[in-house]
Amino acid sequence: MHTLVTGAGGFIGTLLCDRLLARAQSPDSRYTFVDRGLCARPDATNVRVLQSDLASGAELADIVQSADVVYHLAAVPGGASESDYALSRRVNLDLALAVLEASAARTRPARVIYASSIAVYGLATPDEVDDDTPPRPSLTYGAHKLMVETALADLSRRGRIDGLALRLPGIVARPGSGEGLRSAFMSNLFHAYAHGRPYTVPTSPDATVWVMSADRAVDNLLHGAQCGGWPAGTPRALTLPVMRVTVGELAAAVGRAVGTEPPITYEPDPDIEAQFGRLPPLKGCAAGTLGFASDGTIDALVARALAAAGLSGCIRAGATGRAPLE
Amino acid sequence: MHTLVTGAGGFIGTLLCDRLLARAQSPDSRYTFVDRGLCARPDATNVRVLQSDLASGAELADIVQSADVVYHLAAVPGGASESDYALSRRVNLDLALAVLEASAARTRPARVIYASSIAVYGLATPDEVDDDTPPRPSLTYGAHKLMVETALADLSRRGRIDGLALRLPGIVARPGSGEGLRSAFMSNLFHAYAHGRPYTVPTSPDATVWVMSADRAVDNLLHGAQCGGWPAGTPRALTLPVMRVTVGELAAAVGRAVGTEPPITYEPDPDIEAQFGRLPPLKGCAAGTLGFASDGTIDALVARALAAAGLSGCIRAGATGRAPLE
Repeated sequence: MHTLVTGAGGFIGTLLCDRLLARAQSPDSRYTFVDRGLCARPDATNVRVLQSDLASGAELADIVQSADVVYHLAAVPGGASESDYALSRRVNLDLALAVLEASAARTRPARVIYASSIAVYGLATPDEVDDDTPPRPSLTYGAHKLMVETALADLSRRGRIDGLALRLPGIVARPGSGEGLRSAFMSNLFHAYAHGRPYTVPTSPDATVWVMSADRAVDNLLHGAQCGGWPAGTPRALTLPVMRVTVGELAAAVGRAVGTEPPITYEPDPDIEAQFGRLPPLKGCAAGTLGFASDGTIDALVARALAAAGLSGCIRAGATGRAPLE
Repeated sequence: MHTLVTGAGGFIGTLLCDRLLARAQSPDSRYTFVDRGLCARPDATNVRVLQSDLASGAELADIVQSADVVYHLAAVPGGASESDYALSRRVNLDLALAVLEASAARTRPARVIYASSIAVYGLATPDEVDDDTPPRPSLTYGAHKLMVETALADLSRRGRIDGLALRLPGIVARPGSGEGLRSAFMSNLFHAYAHGRPYTVPTSPDATVWVMSADRAVDNLLHGAQCGGWPAGTPRALTLPVMRVTVGELAAAVGRAVGTEPPITYEPDPDIEAQFGRLPPLKGCAAGTLGFASDGTIDALVARALAAAGLSGCIRAGATGRAPLE
């Protein structure tokens, strides 16, 4: 069983690789972790670490075609895609399509898990989102994600891959500054509280966001690779169950967990508020019945998010909620 | 004003070019008609006819960037796309994206009219289709059309092109055998009646189809290039108003027009019936309020369809209905 992870050096990719290697291994388990940057992970007998942007078609075909399970995470984030269309075209569209098509050349279809995004919905969200809400992206990032979802569904229909696109919401808490990521404010809030330093949030406290801890996102990616046998007609692109909270509620929960009250101010940026801060309720969606899950409670989300950012040490005694599924 | 038509030698392309040249010309009007096959049209002072598949990026950029209006019709039909994925990828996806992006390199955004298809809806159509029905293509042809629609909307949102995707229904009556076209049965019905020869229809007589005469399709393409000033949020992909009729009703109307009763039998092919013969009512859509139109009546549709196939001579005296908008 050969498992390939692209974007393996990224925030979610790193956590995913950790979890893959921490599982019980069968004798034939082997892994290829690819990233254009360095993966902070040594090669091992059954682990190949590769620094590559997969721009060479021959290398890509060679790696992808031998993989039974592919997690395609490599992507240019939303802000960077918006400012550099050609880069998003090359990475978020062309590379993703090349991965799907290389996988489709196999005899036995691989399970391909594609990290899509709620950015496919765009601005024009109605009163609620459900499985029949038509995606209308309002950023190039979301447009390219939607195009790849469409190709993945088609190649799956053709029986060439066994694909699944999982639409990730805002993932917290990224360890760094979230460069190129327009939704970075959600993670920055955690760092402000953890380090007791001032932060100006670019939304109103009433902005409603869809959010998930990185650990729970990885749970869902792993579940995506293992589940199956679905009824005919199950969509190949699933919006994951999410916690829908206001930014103010999120800030309060982080404050409860770490026991600080840094000076947080709110200066809404109309564009960021419109893109990320007006998300309506997500109505019972197919993903829930297929075993995918949200963090369950906001306190569980915050505890896991702090852990993902290496901030567990900031959690004050007795403050941690745990997710019900753990 | 430089107008470019790709797929200019095709069925709709030929009619479109005729209509473009038949209009009153302004002194600066010029045209480039491109097809990978021969266009049966001589060069003229203001008309350049080019046999090319636009595979050379330099040639494509040169032609597209000088065009103020682009009609992108060039495509591999549905049946051929299904049997040759790589061909559809190259023509229906890559070429279309290259045309959009070459146009996006202009300083002043061009109006780009893209011939999309109701194939974006796929099999899983609900009780009725409206502007909020999520597209779920069930053929590679429809998947690639939807991907290009998504790119067109994104480049329009970025202000790089002024694009409009028009989703064409079954277009009648094609003059030839409709090779590679899975919906060719609709056109073949016209030829059977016009020539009084037997025909076996691959659907049931109760199959419901969405259909439009080629002339009315060209009316809508021309309208698409001229209209504008739409309210913000108007979708960039429009499902055109259609006549929804049963195949039996269509056959009867053709019979009325040409005065023949050839032996028509019905042997439903489940796959063709499912793809083309279960289309639900199309509920009042944005395109209607923007001035796009169906043929109006089935008799008008039939008369225009016979004319488009060069079969006007078959229409018996007094049988012709006329479309209300003429």
